[in-house]
Amino acid sequence: MLPQLTILAPGLLGASVARAVRARHVAQRIVIWSRRAETRLALTGQPWCDAVADTPEAAVTGSSLVVIASPVDHIVPLIRQIASHLPTGAIVTDVGSVKEEITRLGTAALGAHAHFVGAHPMAGSEKTGWEHGTAELFQGRTCFVTPLTNTAPAATASVLKFWGDLGANTTVVEPARHDEIVAHISHLPQVLASTLCAFLAQRDPAWCDFAGGGLRDTTRIAGSDPQLWRTILEQNRTEVLGAIQHYQAELNRFEKALVAEDYSALVEQLQRGQDYRRALRPIS
Amino acid sequence: MLPQLTILAPGLLGASVARAVRARHVAQRIVIWSRRAETRLALTGQPWCDAVADTPEAAVTGSSLVVIASPVDHIVPLIRQIASHLPTGAIVTDVGSVKEEITRLGTAALGAHAHFVGAHPMAGSEKTGWEHGTAELFQGRTCFVTPLTNTAPAATASVLKFWGDLGANTTVVEPARHDEIVAHISHLPQVLASTLCAFLAQRDPAWCDFAGGGLRDTTRIAGSDPQLWRTILEQNRTEVLGAIQHYQAELNRFEKALVAEDYSALVEQLQRGQDYRRALRPIS
Repeated sequence: MLPQLTILAPGLLGASVARAVRARHVAQRIVIWSRRAETRLALTGQPWCDAVADTPEAAVTGSSLVVIASPVDHIVPLIRQIASHLPTGAIVTDVGSVKEEITRLGTAALGAHAHFVGAHPMAGSEKTGWEHGTAELFQGRTCFVTPLTNTAPAATASVLKFWGDLGANTTVVEPARHDEIVAHISHLPQVLASTLCAFLAQRDPAWCDFAGGGLRDTTRIAGSDPQLWRTILEQNRTEVLGAIQHYQAELNRFEKALVAEDYSALVEQLQRGQDYRRALRPIS
Repeated sequence: MLPQLTILAPGLLGASVARAVRARHVAQRIVIWSRRAETRLALTGQPWCDAVADTPEAAVTGSSLVVIASPVDHIVPLIRQIASHLPTGAIVTDVGSVKEEITRLGTAALGAHAHFVGAHPMAGSEKTGWEHGTAELFQGRTCFVTPLTNTAPAATASVLKFWGDLGANTTVVEPARHDEIVAHISHLPQVLASTLCAFLAQRDPAWCDFAGGGLRDTTRIAGSDPQLWRTILEQNRTEVLGAIQHYQAELNRFEKALVAEDYSALVEQLQRGQDYRRALRPIS
């Protein structure tokens, strides 16, 4: 068991880390810092929070592992802020949805003094805020871990063990490759769900009263926080643009087939989609 | 309570009608015809099936209400087949996802002898087959009812009462207007889910092992039967094409904003999407 772990800027994911760490006895002591004073007050006395710190620097003092759970655009600034306050050899990981820039700048900010090993658990919800955290959020979910070629293997091993202890299925992948993968399986679905809702909002909005389960499921993630997604899209702009543009070609092909009444081409696309969907492994 | 009701060609929806009719005491006797002999055999002895008929004509004899639950391209042929075998004044309804052509041709096929009042319950599943039917499938769901201006008001009232008795929230709408609405809130989401999966299948298919709940929910309906959707898209081609093309403009606007790094325009679209998604009423 780790003697002490720090979580910076907990929202849904950070609070879920804290709950899972407590439930699974991963660390003896959990120290948390949150930017907002009212959140710091509310965290005091939670059974999965042993101490609340007033600053990130104070929060990381004496912790061998630090989890940064902030929105992606705050991760590198927080790493720079805590760098000189970390114990020698401490390990910093995160939960950011984009990894190339964060891993590169985060590693550089810590130098030889401590280790940054980026992570991205594929878990979440359209709900945000620490109040919605659950100890089981990571159970059976993929967690990408993105070391660089010069990352200390022992640090990578520790971060893999940490996310595995929380129930996740860990996968090691290069940061740039990670960003390409999530552009396709996470960011593109978000763009489609959001633009579908944005489009329907400009038709007769009363139609939404008639919606069945199909529209509801297809658009669930469109309920996510726009500002959170702005920063993700900004950091993964090139990969997301590529995914959108290649997807547009697929949708155009479908449209052209429907214009031409080429139903065998339509069925081929629908069939390819059904085959792929059926191959998605169920979440345990 | 109706003395006798007939269900033709039950799949998921037709079997759910039968189960709901039994559970809610809507008819005394339920007669079913299915095209396949093995299904007819399997239906015999189900607690929600009092008699199995070998032909549609035999199945409708003596029934004041007939529910046609076949794929959309079989509905009009079935109406023509049973027309002269219906008791005078009998009412025929259906569950088809497209209504303009079916309502027009179905009404013409029955003439003055009986009444066709089209319906479309917004309930279903990516699963098909009568084995998956449930008595609660229609509970709290929208059911469109699409009479023509010359449909007998008493027949419309009976069909509204019938679907309401099964738990649905009924909404009267013109057939053409219905087809425009579902092109947007049902058929377009299907096209996006299917083409997203078809696209991802052509990238690295192993990526699907990493998928989180977002991709899973967004694409659930892509698991639907391609042949079933082929006929729906064929019958609602013009409206679906219009919805796809207007949606493409919305997606292009998003892409252009990302190319231009115009993040305030992106956030405006994401925000419009979030507002719409939050306005979707929960399903009871």
